[in-house]
Amino acid sequence: MPGSNCSKDIQKNINWSTSADLSTSSPVNSLTEVQPLMLQDMTQVGMKEKEPEVPGRLTALQKARARLLKGVSYFGGDMEVFGKWMEKQFILLQLLDWVLRGAAQVMFVNNPLSGLIIFAGLILQNYWWALNGFVGTLFATISALILKQNRGAIAAGLYGYNGILVGLLMAVFSNAGDWYWWLLLPNIFMSMMCPVVSSAIASINSRWDLPVFTLPFNILVCLHMVATGHYNHHFPQVLIQPRSELPNITWSEIDLPKLFMSVPVGIGQVYGCDNPWTGGIFIVSLFISSPITCAHAVLGSAVGMVSGLALSAPFGDIYFGLWGYNCVLACIAIGGMFYALTWQVHLLAITCAFFCAYLGSAIANIMSSFGLPACTWPFCLSALTFLHLTTGTNRIFKLPLAKVAYPEKNLIWFWKMKKEEKIKKSEAERDEQEKQQKAMEEELILNEKEQLRLDLERAEEGNVQHNASEGKNEVTPVEEQRTHEDNEEVRQNDQT
Amino acid sequence: MPGSNCSKDIQKNINWSTSADLSTSSPVNSLTEVQPLMLQDMTQVGMKEKEPEVPGRLTALQKARARLLKGVSYFGGDMEVFGKWMEKQFILLQLLDWVLRGAAQVMFVNNPLSGLIIFAGLILQNYWWALNGFVGTLFATISALILKQNRGAIAAGLYGYNGILVGLLMAVFSNAGDWYWWLLLPNIFMSMMCPVVSSAIASINSRWDLPVFTLPFNILVCLHMVATGHYNHHFPQVLIQPRSELPNITWSEIDLPKLFMSVPVGIGQVYGCDNPWTGGIFIVSLFISSPITCAHAVLGSAVGMVSGLALSAPFGDIYFGLWGYNCVLACIAIGGMFYALTWQVHLLAITCAFFCAYLGSAIANIMSSFGLPACTWPFCLSALTFLHLTTGTNRIFKLPLAKVAYPEKNLIWFWKMKKEEKIKKSEAERDEQEKQQKAMEEELILNEKEQLRLDLERAEEGNVQHNASEGKNEVTPVEEQRTHEDNEEVRQNDQT
Amino acid sequence: MPGSNCSKDIQKNINWSTSADLSTSSPVNSLTEVQPLMLQDMTQVGMKEKEPEVPGRLTALQKARARLLKGVSYFGGDMEVFGKWMEKQFILLQLLDWVLRGAAQVMFVNNPLSGLIIFAGLILQNYWWALNGFVGTLFATISALILKQNRGAIAAGLYGYNGILVGLLMAVFSNAGDWYWWLLLPNIFMSMMCPVVSSAIASINSRWDLPVFTLPFNILVCLHMVATGHYNHHFPQVLIQPRSELPNITWSEIDLPKLFMSVPVGIGQVYGCDNPWTGGIFIVSLFISSPITCAHAVLGSAVGMVSGLALSAPFGDIYFGLWGYNCVLACIAIGGMFYALTWQVHLLAITCAFFCAYLGSAIANIMSSFGLPACTWPFCLSALTFLHLTTGTNRIFKLPLAKVAYPEKNLIWFWKMKKEEKIKKSEAERDEQEKQQKAMEEELILNEKEQLRLDLERAEEGNVQHNASEGKNEVTPVEEQRTHEDNEEVRQNDQT
Repeated sequence: MPGSNCSKDIQKNINWSTSADLSTSSPVNSLTEVQPLMLQDMTQVGMKEKEPEVPGRLTALQKARARLLKGVSYFGGDMEVFGKWMEKQFILLQLLDWVLRGAAQVMFVNNPLSGLIIFAGLILQNYWWALNGFVGTLFATISALILKQNRGAIAAGLYGYNGILVGLLMAVFSNAGDWYWWLLLPNIFMSMMCPVVSSAIASINSRWDLPVFTLPFNILVCLHMVATGHYNHHFPQVLIQPRSELPNITWSEIDLPKLFMSVPVGIGQVYGCDNPWTGGIFIVSLFISSPITCAHAVLGSAVGMVSGLALSAPFGDIYFGLWGYNCVLACIAIGGMFYALTWQVHLLAITCAFFCAYLGSAIANIMSSFGLPACTWPFCLSALTFLHLTTGTNRIFKLPLAKVAYPEKNLIWFWKMKKEEKIKKSEAERDEQEKQQKAMEEELILNEKEQLRLDLERAEEGNVQHNASEGKNEVTPVEEQRTHEDNEEVRQNDQT
Repeated sequence: MPGSNCSKDIQKNINWSTSADLSTSSPVNSLTEVQPLMLQDMTQVGMKEKEPEVPGRLTALQKARARLLKGVSYFGGDMEVFGKWMEKQFILLQLLDWVLRGAAQVMFVNNPLSGLIIFAGLILQNYWWALNGFVGTLFATISALILKQNRGAIAAGLYGYNGILVGLLMAVFSNAGDWYWWLLLPNIFMSMMCPVVSSAIASINSRWDLPVFTLPFNILVCLHMVATGHYNHHFPQVLIQPRSELPNITWSEIDLPKLFMSVPVGIGQVYGCDNPWTGGIFIVSLFISSPITCAHAVLGSAVGMVSGLALSAPFGDIYFGLWGYNCVLACIAIGGMFYALTWQVHLLAITCAFFCAYLGSAIANIMSSFGLPACTWPFCLSALTFLHLTTGTNRIFKLPLAKVAYPEKNLIWFWKMKKEEKIKKSEAERDEQEKQQKAMEEELILNEKEQLRLDLERAEEGNVQHNASEGKNEVTPVEEQRTHEDNEEVRQNDQT
Repeated sequence: MPGSNCSKDIQKNINWSTSADLSTSSPVNSLTEVQPLMLQDMTQVGMKEKEPEVPGRLTALQKARARLLKGVSYFGGDMEVFGKWMEKQFILLQLLDWVLRGAAQVMFVNNPLSGLIIFAGLILQNYWWALNGFVGTLFATISALILKQNRGAIAAGLYGYNGILVGLLMAVFSNAGDWYWWLLLPNIFMSMMCPVVSSAIASINSRWDLPVFTLPFNILVCLHMVATGHYNHHFPQVLIQPRSELPNITWSEIDLPKLFMSVPVGIGQVYGCDNPWTGGIFIVSLFISSPITCAHAVLGSAVGMVSGLALSAPFGDIYFGLWGYNCVLACIAIGGMFYALTWQVHLLAITCAFFCAYLGSAIANIMSSFGLPACTWPFCLSALTFLHLTTGTNRIFKLPLAKVAYPEKNLIWFWKMKKEEKIKKSEAERDEQEKQQKAMEEELILNEKEQLRLDLERAEEGNVQHNASEGKNEVTPVEEQRTHEDNEEVRQNDQT
């Protein structure tokens, strides 16, 4: 059973980490030590993709490659095999799987291993935040179960990702300090509201076949923060105020290493974390599941940083990753997740990231009037705008929501669909040709018969020799050639 | 004619009230004196519901009960009989009926008697406000007539309830003092805009089969208030400012009687009234039409009060009912009005009330930045969110908008529908069974024939006796038993 | 070829203007001098409309009129002939046509000549603003081409009008002064975002068959302004702050000429221009394409001015046209553009203008909290509200979006549709009648046959004479009369 193999791997990791000498008695170290192992896998995955194809000869290499691909499929992508194996397990273990997938779904990744690594990153950042995030994911998933939401969606973590963000960000923006246990009360309440709000927004967005993104999180966290505010006895929030004077920006003082670090920090800020190592861990978790997602995440963060410089934002904000996290999400969403990845879509994703950065600044300024952070509103609004786009070109193809998995799988589905379309088209053409030929043949036969009759008539009149007609067997070669050309076209298409 | 009976009752009341010795020359006293009469009716209604069923024997009691039920139906519920009788009356009298129904529709009550009592409560609170409310309802209804809106909706007061709120709240939030007659101008303009905005929102919300709630009122009153603002020569508004320091909350100073009073005050605040007696009168008016609505209103107000304490709101706001009124409306809307009442829906209504209280605090804080009150935005948004909810359970059943009447009637419709579904299902099952049996019988007959033929063949060969086949009449008892079971199931369902 | 004729006219104008003695070396004068020519045309158009019909006799006058109408059709309305001729021209020339149409589409006018005059007005106001407006329109149109939007919509300027507003208003609200060339960067970016946002909003609004209006412009300009804000090093915006004290309004100090001038200034403010001459030029450009549009524009601006006085706005704001421009657009949109013009719709347009003025004040106050101007949000929201309106009367008829052209053409389409409906109805009635008559005739024939048979029977028995039946030819006169009446009715309808 392949799934058990995978779970054994995880168990081994956990055993290994617990048996290892832990100087600080925290689970952080153990998981950051697991990291190199993952990196190794990734380099293999990367190698696999660059590997040149030498057909026929190197059978040993091919076998190794097939074995590697099979291995990768166990913990890359959406870990389908593992998910199927999980279905037969104890409910609490399943719940853990859903929670981990939920944690990763913030980045559109449906992979419990990625979720585990992300939790490791969170623990590295702050224990209290990580705990709140876990509680949020857990209760959001439980609430979805109570409200009898779609089981498949729950199992994919689609009801958990808003929960983890609600839990995390309520802890991040609380002014009461860490380990203020009362915070768990609104945390649990708001997490349990997630499926309600998700379901409500889905009922609206489904009219346009669009996802809910992190809108429930945005709504609920803003709700909690503005309902209590900075001046509150029970749940005070950090003070956020609008800018009221020209920021001091001296271009000579720019700190290039920090600017460079802002790329991973921007990815970390998706979960409200400003630790660059945490951001790095998140990059790793993305790479495991989908290299395309990972690439677009890094690209998005970089675009956000550049936009911040262009719009003359205070350097502190840029270093802190505030310009990056929305662009990261927007770039992932457009770049291969909800559109099939072509180079036009790639450009569109970059445009969307720039637009998102602009929007991010705008929304942050507006929200600060109410003492609110921008949350991921900019991402939601920019991605929804770009997904509403309708164009006349078929190179920008929005996937039906039911077919969305992860960029690589989406691409395969898209290519298959294209191929089928081509085949259908060529078949239709062939049918047309055949029909024409049949008509021609029939005509020939008719002519022949007519000829014969005439000949017979003439023969009856005198002695005449008739010649048989020709031009019947030219059909098949033409047909074959056509089919051959079609196949070539399809192959060329795959390479672009 | 039963309707005329009812109208005579009202006439009697009016005659009685005008002939009574009115020391203060105001209609307030007369109507508050009517109150005990209503209370008596209500206790009867309440008794009726608790009354144990003793079938067959106590025919006198049954007759009394039937007579009582018939009497209740004349002025309880939506006063259908009275409404039908009204259709044949003079247009101005009809208009009065529509205005009164409009006044009550704020609380989802389609009952002119409740509307009359509500106006009494308003007069008790403030003459000027009551006048503005009346003008608002009247002109909103007239405008709907001019714009040729649906006559049935107008007759149900569905175009008036936004008008009464617009009129009332514009008077409540005006800083120009009472009896500033110029205020009637924007009042009339905004009231007449109500049907336009209602129609526009209905055209959007109808896509999801959702009502417009008080959205037109919210939009139009906020429009007027923010368009003029506090610093205006013609129509100044009261000054509302965001909180900018920690409120002084000492738990030892809590005033329990005031806290208890905040429940009726919260119900009164639906119409912008802070007088607990007015709130009490409103409770009475709700009870007349629908006890379920009344119960949920009180529950909602209590939930709002508790939420206020939990979120550490200033006690003054809680006493003033600001935490209650949105929860009242949200709890009524979810608890039996737009969902068929089951205990799951009851829990959902309470959850919605808590969510609404949270949202109320959030919206109040945001709106105060613009010098605006929260109006009933929190109720609209939370109720719409909870009505957008889609679940897998059939215990949370959203009624089609066309079937919404009042909780009791909705419940009867829901049970009827369930019964019909059950019957259809059992019929389908019976049909299936019958088909199977027919098939079996046919097979038997065929076998019989075959047997006969064989016997004949054998008889032809020699002397053989044949036996007729059996097993044909066992069908009907089984069928009867099944139908019996189904009926029992339906009955059990009704009792839950 | 009629189109070439038209283009020659334009060329003549341009040649004439360039050959004219230009003291200030700017194209402004040349184009304002063209104005009288246009005015002449307009008076002719006006005359044409008032001209009494004298049928049959004055053939010379009729011919002149037909020639005039043909001449007007070349540069009035949407210049269809010119547009068709353009399709065969060089792409850059086409692009210019689209840009000019885009400039005029802000006012719902699809006419390159109007666009040219509008650009003249802009140049009269400010060179730098005009340049930004041109760049905005150009890049918005190019972006639409890149994104393969509908070619017909691009050719009608429907992707340019948001671009010109984005370009203009970004220049108007920039605090960096004129000729700050860096501004072209965000200008180009935002203009190129226009088709994306347009497409996204269209995908939502098309569900209700509604246009996008200037929503993309509103979104994108607010985005840019609030993203950068007043305190920005690269792209500072003008400082806009909410009112915080009672404005000083002394009614005796009112300046009546300025108040009167606020009507054209209000029209100019649609493009952010405060020069009354520019406003006057815009009025001319509207008149060329559609006198109904022009009349509603002036009416809207006047309504805005009156509303400003009613709501006690500071006189400075009213003089500056801030109360007018939204009402201008709202009044045009409702008054004949998206509804077929009847007098009920005319009243609705005026109501909408009042509502829009109210909304304008409200939105301006809210937006000022974020340092933003009101843009044309009030127009968009009020027009969308009034277009969502559904009424029972057929005198308020919303045109299908695909049939919207300009008020005059819309009216013709509406009348034609009504006529066709009438004809269909009368035909249906006639068919019904004919059927009845046929049935009657058949009955008669049957009776006749029966009679004959009876007669025959009787004849067989003895000698009887039979009489032929009557009442067969009364049908056609009745029918003719009916048709005649129908035609009269249609004619009467046309006159109202």
